[in-house]
Amino acid sequence: MAKDLVIGIDVGGQTSKCGIVDARGTVLAQTVIRSDETTDHDVFIASLAEALNHIIAEAGAEGRIRGIGVGAPNGNYYTGTIEYAPNLKWGGAKVIPFAKLLSDQMNGIPVSLTNDANAAAVGEMTYGAARGMKNFIMITLGTGVGSGIVINGEVVYGHDGFAGELGHTCAVRHNGRVCGCGKTGCLEAYCSATGVARTAREWLEMTDEPSELRSLDKITSKDVYDAAKDGDKLAIKIFEYTGRILGEKLADFIEFSAPEAIVLFGGLARSKEFLTEPILNAMNANVLPLWRNKVKLVYSSLKESDAAILGASALAWEL
Amino acid sequence: MAKDLVIGIDVGGQTSKCGIVDARGTVLAQTVIRSDETTDHDVFIASLAEALNHIIAEAGAEGRIRGIGVGAPNGNYYTGTIEYAPNLKWGGAKVIPFAKLLSDQMNGIPVSLTNDANAAAVGEMTYGAARGMKNFIMITLGTGVGSGIVINGEVVYGHDGFAGELGHTCAVRHNGRVCGCGKTGCLEAYCSATGVARTAREWLEMTDEPSELRSLDKITSKDVYDAAKDGDKLAIKIFEYTGRILGEKLADFIEFSAPEAIVLFGGLARSKEFLTEPILNAMNANVLPLWRNKVKLVYSSLKESDAAILGASALAWEL
Repeated sequence: MAKDLVIGIDVGGQTSKCGIVDARGTVLAQTVIRSDETTDHDVFIASLAEALNHIIAEAGAEGRIRGIGVGAPNGNYYTGTIEYAPNLKWGGAKVIPFAKLLSDQMNGIPVSLTNDANAAAVGEMTYGAARGMKNFIMITLGTGVGSGIVINGEVVYGHDGFAGELGHTCAVRHNGRVCGCGKTGCLEAYCSATGVARTAREWLEMTDEPSELRSLDKITSKDVYDAAKDGDKLAIKIFEYTGRILGEKLADFIEFSAPEAIVLFGGLARSKEFLTEPILNAMNANVLPLWRNKVKLVYSSLKESDAAILGASALAWEL
Repeated sequence: MAKDLVIGIDVGGQTSKCGIVDARGTVLAQTVIRSDETTDHDVFIASLAEALNHIIAEAGAEGRIRGIGVGAPNGNYYTGTIEYAPNLKWGGAKVIPFAKLLSDQMNGIPVSLTNDANAAAVGEMTYGAARGMKNFIMITLGTGVGSGIVINGEVVYGHDGFAGELGHTCAVRHNGRVCGCGKTGCLEAYCSATGVARTAREWLEMTDEPSELRSLDKITSKDVYDAAKDGDKLAIKIFEYTGRILGEKLADFIEFSAPEAIVLFGGLARSKEFLTEPILNAMNANVLPLWRNKVKLVYSSLKESDAAILGASALAWEL
């Protein structure tokens, strides 16, 4: 039987999404399982294999799976391992040979693994906003800030497999916010969904500026977005600040790899109506004249639930 | 006759160095011509061709030149053009099809061209400190700060051929020094030879700290180096400051492409006895724990006069 299908898996801290994908990028069957119900990676991998076998049966795809692609936090493309992933309940403080273990559970179907942001970049290049591009930088604006860098049509993995940690480059050099990674001033501490919420809390505390956000108990980036939609001036300023910091760093990134485009992806990217202008202004003001107003800023064109599965599945075709 | 030799040319603002190189990287003959005696690029290229024919005759290399590689400021690998190069007397405000014009003058010998820092990186990879490395970043600390980035064994050119302008990433975000490029706060404004001299002048003016530099009329980075060798505390602090700023930015660069090593090159790199420790301290303090104390800092092992010729010549072997 022809091996004409692949599986894409997006391993996240709370849930993991899996899908069977054909060569045209159609998701034939998909499912979601919890990632946070065990501290034992073997237990998680067993439940993942069970879920995969279920959708394989559902899609009538027995014997047709050519390979499995996995996007996971701290995933290493070279070794197929997930290394010291603090966001995975079963992942911290150890190196898990995830690709091998999953392949063993799946009767030897080959498994390729990379980090989640790299998988999203591959998805965008194969099926999304970066189709036809050979040089672009994908920035995922979610709970954290991730990145996948594509140069000459290939994801940059670097010497050790972990390249592309742009969320932890320095955005604020002095007295910067403490980041989850232990450093201070990281881009992620400002330009993630949690960074936006943090800016809101700080500004509400430090100023008397009126804002509908004051009535809320616990503020999320979605609340800031909703307030901005209502015309709330403080909320709009929060996005201006966030966009400026991101745009300043994008200028640095452009000077590194001269991409054709920056692709934004993730929950916070949905606030593009408030982010685009401040990002572009700061990016173009801070980049060398050579690239001013030349590098495109585009948003992911894939459904978010599909993008990660598609990106991971695209890896599997290379197997 | 076997085409067993190549020519490497390093085009600089004041002089251009040319050499005939064999497959083992031996420079068989070399010469230097002025680059700054004409504003007409055709006149320069004609005098360059004359010089090349001279060393070809000297080395008995007629008919044996396989190709010519050129490293030049603002050189574009994709197009073979030198574009808007303010440092070349005959280069500003225009796009010069340098590779084609030189090839025409040299009876059709193929010419490959890239920017000078990329050429140096290729030289270091082929013959120098980065031999055997597939992922490294070369930083040239000269009058300016240049960079050549190698990923997966290949120089990064980016979408337009101009990638790797790390000297113009932002080192000081607020109230930074004005840079030659028109932006403010660029790495080059602090960590070049001219940046070091500028730091010296600023600090002498702003403080009363005693220093032997006070007796000098016009201060160069070499003066600061000599003073530091004499134990001059202010001079040593200037290198600490320079090294810290460079190290902070290197941390960002590591998070981008996860190189095996950073290779430093150029006149200012000769002050390594005063720069290495502050660079490493800042680099390791600012990088993600994953890379702390893992990325090597190495210095070019090529004679400076040879490195540029060898780098450019290495390009020619690819022709």
